[in-house]
Amino acid sequence: MAKGGLNLLLFLGSVREGRIGLRVGKYVQNLLEQRSHKVTVLDPKELNLAQVVKPLHFHKNPAEAPEILQKINKQIKGADGFIVVSPEYNSAFGPALASLMDHFPPASYSYRPSTIVTYAGGALGGIRAAMQLRQYLSELTTVHMPSMIVIPNAPKTLDEEGVLKAESGDLVKSCTKAIDQLEWYAGVLKKGREENPV
Amino acid sequence: MAKGGLNLLLFLGSVREGRIGLRVGKYVQNLLEQRSHKVTVLDPKELNLAQVVKPLHFHKNPAEAPEILQKINKQIKGADGFIVVSPEYNSAFGPALASLMDHFPPASYSYRPSTIVTYAGGALGGIRAAMQLRQYLSELTTVHMPSMIVIPNAPKTLDEEGVLKAESGDLVKSCTKAIDQLEWYAGVLKKGREENPV
Amino acid sequence: MAKGGLNLLLFLGSVREGRIGLRVGKYVQNLLEQRSHKVTVLDPKELNLAQVVKPLHFHKNPAEAPEILQKINKQIKGADGFIVVSPEYNSAFGPALASLMDHFPPASYSYRPSTIVTYAGGALGGIRAAMQLRQYLSELTTVHMPSMIVIPNAPKTLDEEGVLKAESGDLVKSCTKAIDQLEWYAGVLKKGREENPV
Amino acid sequence: MAKGGLNLLLFLGSVREGRIGLRVGKYVQNLLEQRSHKVTVLDPKELNLAQVVKPLHFHKNPAEAPEILQKINKQIKGADGFIVVSPEYNSAFGPALASLMDHFPPASYSYRPSTIVTYAGGALGGIRAAMQLRQYLSELTTVHMPSMIVIPNAPKTLDEEGVLKAESGDLVKSCTKAIDQLEWYAGVLKKGREENPV
Repeated sequence: MAKGGLNLLLFLGSVREGRIGLRVGKYVQNLLEQRSHKVTVLDPKELNLAQVVKPLHFHKNPAEAPEILQKINKQIKGADGFIVVSPEYNSAFGPALASLMDHFPPASYSYRPSTIVTYAGGALGGIRAAMQLRQYLSELTTVHMPSMIVIPNAPKTLDEEGVLKAESGDLVKSCTKAIDQLEWYAGVLKKGREENPV
Repeated sequence: MAKGGLNLLLFLGSVREGRIGLRVGKYVQNLLEQRSHKVTVLDPKELNLAQVVKPLHFHKNPAEAPEILQKINKQIKGADGFIVVSPEYNSAFGPALASLMDHFPPASYSYRPSTIVTYAGGALGGIRAAMQLRQYLSELTTVHMPSMIVIPNAPKTLDEEGVLKAESGDLVKSCTKAIDQLEWYAGVLKKGREENPV
Repeated sequence: MAKGGLNLLLFLGSVREGRIGLRVGKYVQNLLEQRSHKVTVLDPKELNLAQVVKPLHFHKNPAEAPEILQKINKQIKGADGFIVVSPEYNSAFGPALASLMDHFPPASYSYRPSTIVTYAGGALGGIRAAMQLRQYLSELTTVHMPSMIVIPNAPKTLDEEGVLKAESGDLVKSCTKAIDQLEWYAGVLKKGREENPV
Repeated sequence: MAKGGLNLLLFLGSVREGRIGLRVGKYVQNLLEQRSHKVTVLDPKELNLAQVVKPLHFHKNPAEAPEILQKINKQIKGADGFIVVSPEYNSAFGPALASLMDHFPPASYSYRPSTIVTYAGGALGGIRAAMQLRQYLSELTTVHMPSMIVIPNAPKTLDEEGVLKAESGDLVKSCTKAIDQLEWYAGVLKKGREENPV
């Protein structure tokens, strides 16, 4: 199907000192931009939203909610799909990711696809966080893709600019597969939403 | 969107004596047929496939695989979507369900939506099995719907013909929501597969 | 076995406005104190640790770590067992809980039992969060108890002082079972640690 | 603590043609026997129990239950701990394992520790199955150990006799850690059960 032109939101999931997620986010962002998609990054560290004290949809009058929440909510609703980049801490996904995404109502994520991206210093690449994300993202009502990007030995694989330090055929292949799938679903669901409003 | 006309496969997930899954399967099947969809039931007890000794795709020569496996595989590939009905045994989904679905390659389930249906005698309705199914079905590469049908107190809720014993507004409402969503995705993805072959 | 005298740490898992966790924490704390145990509450809101930027064990020189982290770490290592009270947000446990517990090395939690307590406004009582906690707490190397305390309709069940609003035989029963089990394991493991240092 | 002398049950979790679980089971059994423990293997293929039609505890009159179920139940209740060896099929643990273990009441597994062992052909070693097992085994009320044995590239790592094909420092190390922990808990809990009957 026609490629390019998707409006994608990329969530980062760590605020830790020295977080590798920045590299991973840049790497995936580059791959998507090479395919002519627009990628907007939501970084919990930059946004400085801190922990959820009151989600957007818990404000009786939305106009009272912090402007930054209203702005991000519009970005979510305007996106064609999501990329969710998470570390794995103690087998779970990053609490900073939940602190960011929990701020917004599930309805904002609905009928849009998402791709799970995890990374770790070890050989498992954050797959346990990815498994918990399958449950979490389904509850947020985004449809997460079967194909994921799971990056083992991340600090040794990517440099600080998000460039591969050495050839990694397996990673490139799994990224291609995951992005092809995201493109297919994002395109098909976008058309579906236009033709059959939900 | 236009309703009716979907070709759906319904998997049952128990072979136990007195299994309540039969009632649940009939109840959901009726709801789908009332909307003019075709529902084919795959019952592990009737099929008598027993446990997986060798999945279809592990046969070097598919022609050597048991005919029944080849037949079901065609049904899966020909379906527009799946309904997966499972009990919860010790917080997991039914092993009879895995024994049935594991026989077939993930590719057969791809680019098709599925709806998770769980039931239990207690108040939790099998939600723990549903959570494990989110991970399992994603690995089978079907896209499972955010909305599920979770039936607590199942033996008291449905009679042996799969008819509600008493009014249950909550259950009816959640079924409507789940089936609406399955219809939307099944229709949109079907069109997507036709226009953008995968 | 001899009751009373355990030194227990109770973790709260929410910092949200109007959090029900406070009531739940008080309710369980009361039950434990009635059995003559000492309960110390770790409240992420009061502690104001915010999100994890650098866990205690990532400081090369522990003396450089914030004093509050060193203090809590000593409390964890000095405890006979843990009670982990969590809300369920989008099927996951509270990110404020992870932000608190992730600060400390798994070794601090080792060879000690923990009891999972979840609550929710709905009928499922946070059981999905509890399921993810089973994986998370195992990774923190505490041994979590098979019996849990899962509280559905929490705001209607407990008042602001953590007192039952109405009789609730099921909840009382499940608390008794869970606390009996925690006492048994805490006592047995304590003796085990004394006789067979690890 | 004093080593040796534990009475352990090892569950195999696959009945598939060419199953690698046999090798894994033998490998772990050898390690345990070298430490002078008694290991009894429960193999679902040999036992030929097939799928669960009626668990032992669902028989109104236990004397009517098949003798083999009564015999295994006694073995479970008489054990000091369990080793649970599972493959990973589509991110879940083997249905043959559930078909075996589901036959018996949770009470039979209570107050005894278990060690999770998974294996896979790929780099993840079955960790996803292990994560689902954490939830499943907790529901069976055995206390599963934080340390697990996760074996990637299993067919290349172990020969048919369960002997390492080449040195594998990481695997040996993780086995030592996991078995040390199982011994500690099995010994401490055994003494606990004797001194404080449950």
